[in-house]
Amino acid sequence: MSYNLLKGKRGIIFGALDENSIAWKTAERIHEEGGTFVLTNAPVALRMGQINALAEKTGSQVIPADATSLEDLENLIEKSVEILGGKLDFVLHSIGMSINVRKGNSYMDQNYDWTQKGTDISAMSFHKVMQTLYKKDAMNKWGSIVALTYMAAQRVFPDYNDMADNKAYLESVARSFGYFFGKDKTVRVNTISQSPTPTTAGSGVKGFDGFIAYADKMSPLGNATALDCANYTVAMFSDLTKMVTLQNLFHDGGFSNMGVSNEVMEAFIKGVEE
Amino acid sequence: MSYNLLKGKRGIIFGALDENSIAWKTAERIHEEGGTFVLTNAPVALRMGQINALAEKTGSQVIPADATSLEDLENLIEKSVEILGGKLDFVLHSIGMSINVRKGNSYMDQNYDWTQKGTDISAMSFHKVMQTLYKKDAMNKWGSIVALTYMAAQRVFPDYNDMADNKAYLESVARSFGYFFGKDKTVRVNTISQSPTPTTAGSGVKGFDGFIAYADKMSPLGNATALDCANYTVAMFSDLTKMVTLQNLFHDGGFSNMGVSNEVMEAFIKGVEE
Amino acid sequence: MSYNLLKGKRGIIFGALDENSIAWKTAERIHEEGGTFVLTNAPVALRMGQINALAEKTGSQVIPADATSLEDLENLIEKSVEILGGKLDFVLHSIGMSINVRKGNSYMDQNYDWTQKGTDISAMSFHKVMQTLYKKDAMNKWGSIVALTYMAAQRVFPDYNDMADNKAYLESVARSFGYFFGKDKTVRVNTISQSPTPTTAGSGVKGFDGFIAYADKMSPLGNATALDCANYTVAMFSDLTKMVTLQNLFHDGGFSNMGVSNEVMEAFIKGVEE
Amino acid sequence: MSYNLLKGKRGIIFGALDENSIAWKTAERIHEEGGTFVLTNAPVALRMGQINALAEKTGSQVIPADATSLEDLENLIEKSVEILGGKLDFVLHSIGMSINVRKGNSYMDQNYDWTQKGTDISAMSFHKVMQTLYKKDAMNKWGSIVALTYMAAQRVFPDYNDMADNKAYLESVARSFGYFFGKDKTVRVNTISQSPTPTTAGSGVKGFDGFIAYADKMSPLGNATALDCANYTVAMFSDLTKMVTLQNLFHDGGFSNMGVSNEVMEAFIKGVEE
Repeated sequence: MSYNLLKGKRGIIFGALDENSIAWKTAERIHEEGGTFVLTNAPVALRMGQINALAEKTGSQVIPADATSLEDLENLIEKSVEILGGKLDFVLHSIGMSINVRKGNSYMDQNYDWTQKGTDISAMSFHKVMQTLYKKDAMNKWGSIVALTYMAAQRVFPDYNDMADNKAYLESVARSFGYFFGKDKTVRVNTISQSPTPTTAGSGVKGFDGFIAYADKMSPLGNATALDCANYTVAMFSDLTKMVTLQNLFHDGGFSNMGVSNEVMEAFIKGVEE
Repeated sequence: MSYNLLKGKRGIIFGALDENSIAWKTAERIHEEGGTFVLTNAPVALRMGQINALAEKTGSQVIPADATSLEDLENLIEKSVEILGGKLDFVLHSIGMSINVRKGNSYMDQNYDWTQKGTDISAMSFHKVMQTLYKKDAMNKWGSIVALTYMAAQRVFPDYNDMADNKAYLESVARSFGYFFGKDKTVRVNTISQSPTPTTAGSGVKGFDGFIAYADKMSPLGNATALDCANYTVAMFSDLTKMVTLQNLFHDGGFSNMGVSNEVMEAFIKGVEE
Repeated sequence: MSYNLLKGKRGIIFGALDENSIAWKTAERIHEEGGTFVLTNAPVALRMGQINALAEKTGSQVIPADATSLEDLENLIEKSVEILGGKLDFVLHSIGMSINVRKGNSYMDQNYDWTQKGTDISAMSFHKVMQTLYKKDAMNKWGSIVALTYMAAQRVFPDYNDMADNKAYLESVARSFGYFFGKDKTVRVNTISQSPTPTTAGSGVKGFDGFIAYADKMSPLGNATALDCANYTVAMFSDLTKMVTLQNLFHDGGFSNMGVSNEVMEAFIKGVEE
Repeated sequence: MSYNLLKGKRGIIFGALDENSIAWKTAERIHEEGGTFVLTNAPVALRMGQINALAEKTGSQVIPADATSLEDLENLIEKSVEILGGKLDFVLHSIGMSINVRKGNSYMDQNYDWTQKGTDISAMSFHKVMQTLYKKDAMNKWGSIVALTYMAAQRVFPDYNDMADNKAYLESVARSFGYFFGKDKTVRVNTISQSPTPTTAGSGVKGFDGFIAYADKMSPLGNATALDCANYTVAMFSDLTKMVTLQNLFHDGGFSNMGVSNEVMEAFIKGVEE
């Protein structure tokens, strides 16, 4: 589908790794809707991924940037405005990584250097991106900034480990910075809290397959896919949603407001009866 | 603006009274986006309003219905499907009225017959609409049902009186029925919690002008207008938001997540110092 | 245990039916903590239950009252103040009933006369109790009013039926009336959102045993019992919690903030694999 | 008042600086209720404060500890168990500091080294405390851990700066660790979200006096004081609240659920009319 919803809009997309990425799908959909953008990711992620194929397909340029480095972010934003020919209308932050998870440390046995590094990458990076955009006055009026998050920020999913706390910090940054961006620059800032999604990054979480099935059976409409999320992000970047800001938007087939579904209850009862 | 977002989609719009109504603006925007619909309101409201002008402008038919009457709702839904030539894709519920407010009864001095009548009109009517749609299997797969609500359902606004409790009930109905509509019919149900809006209905609330100013200065982006709300509702009726369900969506320029803004604090300090 | 926490405090307890009732346990604990009270319930419930045994044990009088009848409530409150020898310090509202549930009507097939009656008994009754207390100026300064509720007010539990919407209304009434009771009378109003509890009333909900097991395995501390709830209510009636008001307090072993526990996930996976 | 609520219970109290501190008042109240404890604070805070007077008054020992240092925390917990003669029943975390606030950096002009340091002190320290308690198995069954927080974690208070994000992280840590502490050790973990309180630490926030007045006029019962908070913490440490866990408990005279009070609205209108 294509509605020309983002015609003439310019932006930056963080975090497209491969075609399973939500950011990848979002880039494709934004391109279809007439938006133009710069793609970026950490140098190491760029080497692992296939971002050049996406850049080619969408007529975009790729600028490497470590999202924890102010210098990289400054360079990225300056170059993006230059390449795209004007200030930005949208920014997607789709970045997250827990070293404790990768290394197999439990939540009760954190290596705090890794915890701190994970917070920097997953949460403070969002502040750094916005602070750099704000200082450079790089966003157009009514621009829209979105970061992807997960409901572990509100409720406990034991295997999500320290990423839960990072997402809580990230969502708070969206509110806190959203106030100043709104008042001073007429720019909105929101987070989208997406269903668990089988991306290359997400698959690092222990027991992810069982969890995907659980969320799917709990949600009245099932899990939202990466493409669904791309569509929703397009809506949040469009002029139809100009007055939505400081929000954490659940995009999850209804999971977030479920206590229990009949399907989950049935499986649970079978499971405990064995 | 027009993106053809709702091309081929059919629906029912409750609650358009005059050109200040959110439902009125929404009808205009849906028409621009290619959707077709039936307009409805209570017989008494139809007499007071100018709905025929809207019907003419949008090529729609008007079917009177008291939203508390199952008979009226059955007739409305059957006729709508017939007139529009197929099952429905969207329904907007924009109905609310407190007799205690109208008659000047304080929240601590309710006439409970009026309280009950207000609940029936403002909140149970939403259940009745959905139960009738569900029983008649009148919604298409991936259809979208939206009811308008207000943040008094979560937080205290003293003059909002018993409408606060009605809105809390309404939002609960959206979640409760949304589960069954999602699982059984693949239909989503959400509420939009809108900024205070200077409509003909809203102006019945005591001290409404002061409150509009307060909300405007509190919200980083100011108050959302009726037209803004129409645009957001269009997004929620479109295929871009298919996996959003059971949600209460704040559409309020950021008000809902504010503790206090600098502007409100300045006015407050001036006001108390006098 | 006994700490004399409620020495000299007077109140009314609604809803003690038999020794499984939360209200029954609460009455016992309040008695142990030095509080005095009047017991009340609907005439029909009084006939079914064993409330006289409780009255005897706690040295209390029983005054029948239909909580939907203003006349009965006026009589109850006047007599209670007289019997207890002064204004009231605490009130417990533990009342709820859905006729649709009792009669086996699904949520998509409501009899709206029953829906309305259920709302009156389960939710508006709380407003009626508070309006009568307020008008009669029957509460002491720093008094505490508590109503029992359930998390279905926030999240979907399919079998909870229209009681979910009633509890949402009840919790809103606590906030709305809590404002006026706080400002005008320095009285606090809260709801306690309790774990599913195997009471005589609760057992009417379909599939209740499975649900009790599910909640127990989801909650880090397991389900809270009726006695636990009685203890928590004592704390909320004591002078230690004077500044807590307008809150919905989850008392559920942690259930409300869980996404999923390891135990539930294990049972779920076993159950779906079969 | 004294009820012997904490007789025989042992614990650690972080963050008592001077007699304005919430932790100071809490220590006094716990002492009155029969509990015994070790007092701790950062070495620099110990030099500035008058903690020895408190230690003397309550018959407690003081052990200096930098709450960001695992070594210090290990020493503190080992010694405390030794001094108090057994495992711990309660821990109060009342620690927070933003270097950006102290140095006058706005939220849009953060020094990220300071941001990171503030997060370590204000939020990760709570994880470090719990991880050390957990690994040393230093908590008794049904023990209670409480951290003090502020509503800026949910809603925007512009002057609260990066402490808002730190408090969001802290509250997430309470939920995340609370799950494991509950399941594995039968220990509860909660945060208390307190009214703005005129402590020596709090007075560093810009415009704090105006804000205190605003919160006071917004809250139906006015602002909760440090002593009120001490009483509430006593209740949360007592056996009356054993099944409350993973919660963020608002202790604020009702502020958190207010949209606007009549007093604030009146002052606002006066203020804008000038």
